[in-house]
Amino acid sequence: MPYGYMGKLLRVDLTQKKTCVEDLDSAVARKYIGGSGLAAKYLYEETDGSTDPLGPDNLLVFMTGPFTGTVVPNSGRHAVAAKSPLTGIWAEGDAGGTWGVMLKRAGFDGILIRGKATEPVYLWVHEQGVEIRPAEHLWGKDTFEVADLIKAETHPKAVVSSIGQAGENLVRIAVIMSDGREGRTAGRGGLGAVMGSKNLKAVAVYGTKRPMAAKEEDLKTFTKEMVTAIRDRTQGMSRFGTAGGLQAMEELGDLPIRNWCQGSWPEGAAKIGGQRMAESILTRNYHCGACVIGCGRVVKLGRGEYAGVEQGGPEYETLASLGALCLVDDLEAVALANEYCNRSGLDTISTGSAIAFAMECWEHGLITAKDTDGLKLEWGSAEAMLTLVQAIARREGLGRLLADGVRAAAQALGPRAEEYAIHVKGLEFPAHDPRAYNSVAVGYATSNRGACHLQGFTHMFEKSVTMPELGYDEIQDRFGVEGKGELTAKCQDLMCLMDALKMCKFSLSGGVKVTHMIKWLNYVTGWDVSLQEFLKTGERIFNLKRLYNVRCGISRKDDILPPRILTHKRGSGGAADNLPPLGKMLSEYYTWRGWSEEGIPTHAKLRELGLEEYIS
Amino acid sequence: MPYGYMGKLLRVDLTQKKTCVEDLDSAVARKYIGGSGLAAKYLYEETDGSTDPLGPDNLLVFMTGPFTGTVVPNSGRHAVAAKSPLTGIWAEGDAGGTWGVMLKRAGFDGILIRGKATEPVYLWVHEQGVEIRPAEHLWGKDTFEVADLIKAETHPKAVVSSIGQAGENLVRIAVIMSDGREGRTAGRGGLGAVMGSKNLKAVAVYGTKRPMAAKEEDLKTFTKEMVTAIRDRTQGMSRFGTAGGLQAMEELGDLPIRNWCQGSWPEGAAKIGGQRMAESILTRNYHCGACVIGCGRVVKLGRGEYAGVEQGGPEYETLASLGALCLVDDLEAVALANEYCNRSGLDTISTGSAIAFAMECWEHGLITAKDTDGLKLEWGSAEAMLTLVQAIARREGLGRLLADGVRAAAQALGPRAEEYAIHVKGLEFPAHDPRAYNSVAVGYATSNRGACHLQGFTHMFEKSVTMPELGYDEIQDRFGVEGKGELTAKCQDLMCLMDALKMCKFSLSGGVKVTHMIKWLNYVTGWDVSLQEFLKTGERIFNLKRLYNVRCGISRKDDILPPRILTHKRGSGGAADNLPPLGKMLSEYYTWRGWSEEGIPTHAKLRELGLEEYIS
Repeated sequence: MPYGYMGKLLRVDLTQKKTCVEDLDSAVARKYIGGSGLAAKYLYEETDGSTDPLGPDNLLVFMTGPFTGTVVPNSGRHAVAAKSPLTGIWAEGDAGGTWGVMLKRAGFDGILIRGKATEPVYLWVHEQGVEIRPAEHLWGKDTFEVADLIKAETHPKAVVSSIGQAGENLVRIAVIMSDGREGRTAGRGGLGAVMGSKNLKAVAVYGTKRPMAAKEEDLKTFTKEMVTAIRDRTQGMSRFGTAGGLQAMEELGDLPIRNWCQGSWPEGAAKIGGQRMAESILTRNYHCGACVIGCGRVVKLGRGEYAGVEQGGPEYETLASLGALCLVDDLEAVALANEYCNRSGLDTISTGSAIAFAMECWEHGLITAKDTDGLKLEWGSAEAMLTLVQAIARREGLGRLLADGVRAAAQALGPRAEEYAIHVKGLEFPAHDPRAYNSVAVGYATSNRGACHLQGFTHMFEKSVTMPELGYDEIQDRFGVEGKGELTAKCQDLMCLMDALKMCKFSLSGGVKVTHMIKWLNYVTGWDVSLQEFLKTGERIFNLKRLYNVRCGISRKDDILPPRILTHKRGSGGAADNLPPLGKMLSEYYTWRGWSEEGIPTHAKLRELGLEEYIS
Repeated sequence: MPYGYMGKLLRVDLTQKKTCVEDLDSAVARKYIGGSGLAAKYLYEETDGSTDPLGPDNLLVFMTGPFTGTVVPNSGRHAVAAKSPLTGIWAEGDAGGTWGVMLKRAGFDGILIRGKATEPVYLWVHEQGVEIRPAEHLWGKDTFEVADLIKAETHPKAVVSSIGQAGENLVRIAVIMSDGREGRTAGRGGLGAVMGSKNLKAVAVYGTKRPMAAKEEDLKTFTKEMVTAIRDRTQGMSRFGTAGGLQAMEELGDLPIRNWCQGSWPEGAAKIGGQRMAESILTRNYHCGACVIGCGRVVKLGRGEYAGVEQGGPEYETLASLGALCLVDDLEAVALANEYCNRSGLDTISTGSAIAFAMECWEHGLITAKDTDGLKLEWGSAEAMLTLVQAIARREGLGRLLADGVRAAAQALGPRAEEYAIHVKGLEFPAHDPRAYNSVAVGYATSNRGACHLQGFTHMFEKSVTMPELGYDEIQDRFGVEGKGELTAKCQDLMCLMDALKMCKFSLSGGVKVTHMIKWLNYVTGWDVSLQEFLKTGERIFNLKRLYNVRCGISRKDDILPPRILTHKRGSGGAADNLPPLGKMLSEYYTWRGWSEEGIPTHAKLRELGLEEYIS
């Protein structure tokens, strides 16, 4: 087994109450690296187009990468993947924290779970193996409570991933939370509902092993060099967190406002941004495992039921979705909503999107007081927003409608409502506007889990990041058209690699280049991966995920954006007049990918990538 | 009652076997003019969003305009409208010939038919009134046979509109044919199936009345002046018919080839164009009532079951759809297919599109020999094309799948097939490529009956037509972007007027301007319609049709184009590299229309247009 890995995968069948350990094959590890790369292989092979995402045949994969648990900076991460109950296609979540690190310390690179327990259970994974334990006493508890209770039952330093009530209620925008009240999240596509469908409340891990590096000394020396540089470049992120960029993003026309209808909102942005948070509710930073940035926020609220308790603070995405998207400019209200989401296990992006969607339906009379028990869903109403967050987690009242995401809600409300449902392939938009960055249009349209900024992250290349190894020596023009298809494809391949290695993408803001990643990879594993092999591996992983989706019926017809984004200008602010010409950029994208006209990886491409075994 | 109209509408209820005559209100006539303008009013008021297009509550409207039956050139036309069984929204067909002229001679401006007869019937409309006559002996006959049989039973000069076997079989791409074997067609959206669903085989009309013009002398003098100019400008059309442009359109990259996948096909175009037809099977021209151009073709085939019989020849659209789209370069085969379509009453555009779709599905293995009784659906196979035309009319074998149009066929075949279904709102594309004329992209996306070139006809303004009254003194740039939304909206309003007046759109090629139309209208009716009132009337009609569709659930989300057209370049020929940036142009279009962001006519716009009664 190569260095950097533990060499063991844990298999759990909850129906049969059986567990076993299998070796991780070295060649497979090099081919897919780890994280969601490796997860794609198992998911492709062990589920298919007809698998019910909430049935026992869905496979829930927790996977670390070769960097997890090492000294490589910003590597305290793990991936969770399954077939999504929200979108019906590939889903992956990338979580920070220390759970992945602890899984490796327990001796495993990953856990693959199938089947369904007859009663609620949790997994207790440690160096001696795994126990399937009863969890009836934990069912109905929130994720913070569960973490505390399980630690008390297992080991005080155990790290717990769990679902809250949302996952139990099979809410299709439910997440899997880890690291207790500081709240790290495998957030998108309803992975919490998959866990809930298996009657699996939590997975607790603890151990003391360490992954070995092939070249410990080189690794340490190089890491030391890099850490200083990364820290220097990410001081703002450290000081103000992801939310620190909120006001700048509002100015650029990137922040979505009023369900993607409004161009600017300077006064609101000032009230909910990271600077304001630093001056008010912030108590300290939070660092994931091996993190040298510390963008995580810990806050203490002055009001609400959790007043005075220290807890994870809202990220940029959360403030944008539960705040700006709903026109709520009350920072404490959004922080409280974040707390509700973290405890009950809800995706703050999808939840905010669903509420903004409901507010727009209310404005147009498609949802009325009789659907809401009299609650007025007015723009900016913190009360409405907070009430709906809880209703969604509980699947109560209007929450029943919104719990399955905006696509399903719009289908239920009729054709007019579809205009207000802002998603791609069923996944609600994150908080970056394709009208502010043309490349984001291609990224959202083609990202394998549906609308996603993290699986392309191209807007960083149009803002602050250069990457000579990919041919980008300069910051790209965000309103340009030529070259955006190529940029998107290249960045998606690179993001596949970072999600496989398990390296936080904010490392890019810290000046980490492809060459550095390869250096770390080779120091850790002892391999001699070249630039070409590295990039080809990223492309392989991306294509395998696409292939997964193709089997679910996805093709070019699904690589689209909501009409609002293509036809309605923001009208004011830093991206007032831009509308991304998606077709032209997609054309370039397919050509660059070497896919068929219909967006299907060709046999030639699959052979080139060593994926011939998946040619159907 | 104003001059130019007969002042009477015929009402038929086939369920109750009742007929009655009602007056056409003067104010209503001036507000909606006639044709599909007037039809929109009745259809909006007497059907709704939940009306089953093939149920007895659908209203089938035949309507003439103030020009029909007068000396105004190119006015021998009538409209047919109903809720479409193909698209579920507004459908209208605009037919030439002499049926409309004869309806007015019988004393009626239009016929409105609802209900369903228990047994097959036909209507015999004459100056003394209307008879509902049994038609069991006609059921199963083709449209040519029916015309002959009914003339023998009624009057030798009666003109017959009827359905063939396709309409009887409720084929959703069935048409209503008139004028016997010379074959004029109310072609799109499955109007033949609506007629079939009512058990109505035909409507025969005959009379000797004449619509009176207010200023007969002025009308004659002005018409005489114009006729010479129109004839001069349309000699090519007269000589080679609509098919005369086929080779030029291939060169321009406008002709669709191989289901919209191929850029050029010069050798094929040369074999099936109008010049070739003139040298081979053409026997003479055909003129609709009052036509001074004579683009209609009459041909005599040398082979097939109808060899030696004179019959209507294929139009450009037919040659493009059953020929180029299927890669069939055999002129006689396409002419024979045209004959099959005309006799059985099939839309040649939708039929050719359905067959090309099937051929592409065959290429990709989505349709195999076991679906076709062994018939090979290879590109260019005249045998396959001819066999499928007949199978569709009969709803036999693979024809069952294709008889409901490409949207439904793709839904049945699964998501991959949707990539090959080229339609908007369920209506198959006509044979002009939005990649060759950017304005056509907006036109297809927003045309009220689904993908349609005739309801915008904007490509003519990018090719040969100027219209100073609309602000177009020069030919427009076909690859331009700015201004296309406005051009499309203005042209659509003008086309609504031509479809209401009942004036053939080829008059535009003859140099007819808006000013001329107004002159004719005022000479005929005695009104004092100004340019402003005229254009506002066109806008009113367009908005009313849109409102009809809005009630059926249509909004911006439906104003789209198939991904192939937006992302796949033709690759060669005269429009090799262009991809129309639809979003940007649509944005301008909605703004110009004064519609909401979601493509809904606003209350203010409806009030401005005098449509306040339709504010819901």
